[in-house]
Amino acid sequence: MYDTPPAAPSRRSDVDPFRAMDVMAAANRMVAAGRDVISLAVGQPSAPVPGTVAESVGAFLRRGRIGYTDALGRASLRARIARHYAEAYGVDVPAERVMVTTGSSAGFNLAFLTAFDVGDRVAIATPGYPAYRNILKALGIEPVEIEVGPEDDYVLTAEALERVHRETPVRGVLIASPANPTGTVTSPDELRRLVQFADAAGIVFVSDEIYHGLAFGRETASALQFSDRAIVVNSFSKYYCMTGWRIGWLVLPPHLVRPAERVGQSLYISAPELSQVGAEAVFEATEELEAVKLGYERSRALLMDALPALGFGDIAPIDGAFYAYASIPQGFADATELARHLLDTALVAATPGLDFDLRRGHRTMRLSYAGDPSEIAEAVRRLRTVPGLGG
Amino acid sequence: MYDTPPAAPSRRSDVDPFRAMDVMAAANRMVAAGRDVISLAVGQPSAPVPGTVAESVGAFLRRGRIGYTDALGRASLRARIARHYAEAYGVDVPAERVMVTTGSSAGFNLAFLTAFDVGDRVAIATPGYPAYRNILKALGIEPVEIEVGPEDDYVLTAEALERVHRETPVRGVLIASPANPTGTVTSPDELRRLVQFADAAGIVFVSDEIYHGLAFGRETASALQFSDRAIVVNSFSKYYCMTGWRIGWLVLPPHLVRPAERVGQSLYISAPELSQVGAEAVFEATEELEAVKLGYERSRALLMDALPALGFGDIAPIDGAFYAYASIPQGFADATELARHLLDTALVAATPGLDFDLRRGHRTMRLSYAGDPSEIAEAVRRLRTVPGLGG
Repeated sequence: MYDTPPAAPSRRSDVDPFRAMDVMAAANRMVAAGRDVISLAVGQPSAPVPGTVAESVGAFLRRGRIGYTDALGRASLRARIARHYAEAYGVDVPAERVMVTTGSSAGFNLAFLTAFDVGDRVAIATPGYPAYRNILKALGIEPVEIEVGPEDDYVLTAEALERVHRETPVRGVLIASPANPTGTVTSPDELRRLVQFADAAGIVFVSDEIYHGLAFGRETASALQFSDRAIVVNSFSKYYCMTGWRIGWLVLPPHLVRPAERVGQSLYISAPELSQVGAEAVFEATEELEAVKLGYERSRALLMDALPALGFGDIAPIDGAFYAYASIPQGFADATELARHLLDTALVAATPGLDFDLRRGHRTMRLSYAGDPSEIAEAVRRLRTVPGLGG
Repeated sequence: MYDTPPAAPSRRSDVDPFRAMDVMAAANRMVAAGRDVISLAVGQPSAPVPGTVAESVGAFLRRGRIGYTDALGRASLRARIARHYAEAYGVDVPAERVMVTTGSSAGFNLAFLTAFDVGDRVAIATPGYPAYRNILKALGIEPVEIEVGPEDDYVLTAEALERVHRETPVRGVLIASPANPTGTVTSPDELRRLVQFADAAGIVFVSDEIYHGLAFGRETASALQFSDRAIVVNSFSKYYCMTGWRIGWLVLPPHLVRPAERVGQSLYISAPELSQVGAEAVFEATEELEAVKLGYERSRALLMDALPALGFGDIAPIDGAFYAYASIPQGFADATELARHLLDTALVAATPGLDFDLRRGHRTMRLSYAGDPSEIAEAVRRLRTVPGLGG
């Protein structure tokens, strides 16, 4: 019927899958089929949206006109985010430098498109959030993976960055603190050294601060405390419990605002308006959000206790975010197989490490404790029944 | 203080602004300052969201858990969209080929990333939606602009495509019908010729069908009626009145579903869940949506009558969408200046043609009649008072 075969997919679409999402999709299919699956796979708070958000959004919805906003976002939300920097960090950030984005996903894409060209090299820590690597690759940027591990508490240091840069210069670096999947926090002193080295070397510093608000006994600094050149990516998905709303923000150095706006106009038009309305309201929900955080602290204590007993090793310092990252127990050969096994036999979904570390991830696993504390406790009970785990 | 200047923006972020959005932002600032601006600048229905959407979304909001969905979208929405193809076109499209996207913006980005690599050439009609050109460029793809005009009723034909392809082959072609900014409809016969030529030549056919449902006395065919290889981009923003929700969909040939899913997992995670819930409900709002469409018909008749009298010329056949595209009246030198003049003096915002046609657009303008019919009528009254317009 056709003269020619269909065109093949692009080479650049041959990125790795985000395995956590594949696990989630599989778990969703099992739930739809009536199975009682508990998911530790995705970094998604199970807490319901704070009451003030539901009220504000409900009222806006009843008014009925939900439209495009300026590409940079609603003026009132940009101003509110700017105020947050004064309140939380004592840093003066003008609203003009704030861009509202469709989740941090759009933030990364816009930051990368605005700062980097095809062929540029950008340093990231491994293990790390797989979307960094995948978005960079899809955009023709070369991710330069710098391995961190138990020996350096899973923290990418200025010294390590300098070593890599001296050998083959990078155009940018991306640091997440607290980090995904490890949960580790980069100390304010180390962050300052990283930012100052990047500024001195003309390297674009991208600071992923989406887990700010979720550190346990550790101080988290914003890169904006050390430089007005850093690009900060943030999100309402984690501390603010608004994953499915797809809403976040960028803080940009002044000379990148208009380029990011131009790219955003064509690539996104604007972030969803209802989500922008909800995000503005969520700043008033501190009491509810802190209660949710207390639940994470309980789950965290539970996992710190249970994981070694289950046979997991090399556990990264669980300083922030809501993840535990660890080597799988002796006796299991492969983390992906173990994840499948746990889902089938214990109805517990977890994410195999290959998402985060292509070289070493077949031996590691990420467990998210963002869910309801009683579910995390039940998941631990189920894991204890699996032959070979801690047995 | 710094050893080096800050890194410059990327070369690829040097895309054109989406001027319609700049005009909208300027109009928004004037409205915020208390000025009574009427916008004909943006293709945005002013009709409120249908009642059934507000109800469904309100109920979902009260349940409180708004989360990530599968990267391909909620299963029930994908199934509903698949059913729409049977109902509206008599075409069998399995739900597995439907991907829910964060507006057609994400649809284009995912389609381009999945089908095209850096350096590929993709044919588009000029004048055309500026985001095509801007997204293609930002992704390193070369837009091949084929000019259409009054002589061919602003329709890109299979013959014109073949001529360009014979000279220097293209990897893909994107056709919009009804088209933005012209409102013209490609006839089903011509669309069939285009699709069949593309299939025979191994060219990826991308069909922008976001203005389907908004044709006036003209039949609009889906590319899926002629090929299962076409990539269809669609949206809930136009006929369905859900712009600010940022929700749309792709129909992909089977071999592109998994590549698009992989890229989408990292680049978007998923479309906003509330918007997916609303989109599923909007299929039941046909009565309200048809009433809105009747309003467009009145505004369209008004503009078809008024524009020639105001001195606009070369008016593209206003067959569909909600745009009139025309040459500016004699006596005005530049469309961008005229747009600024109309905004300042008549408080009417319109989009200068440069958005859509870099070579000829300084002489053209797009007027959207997506707003409330009484506002369109008032805008026409105001335009009649501008010296030099029809005077």
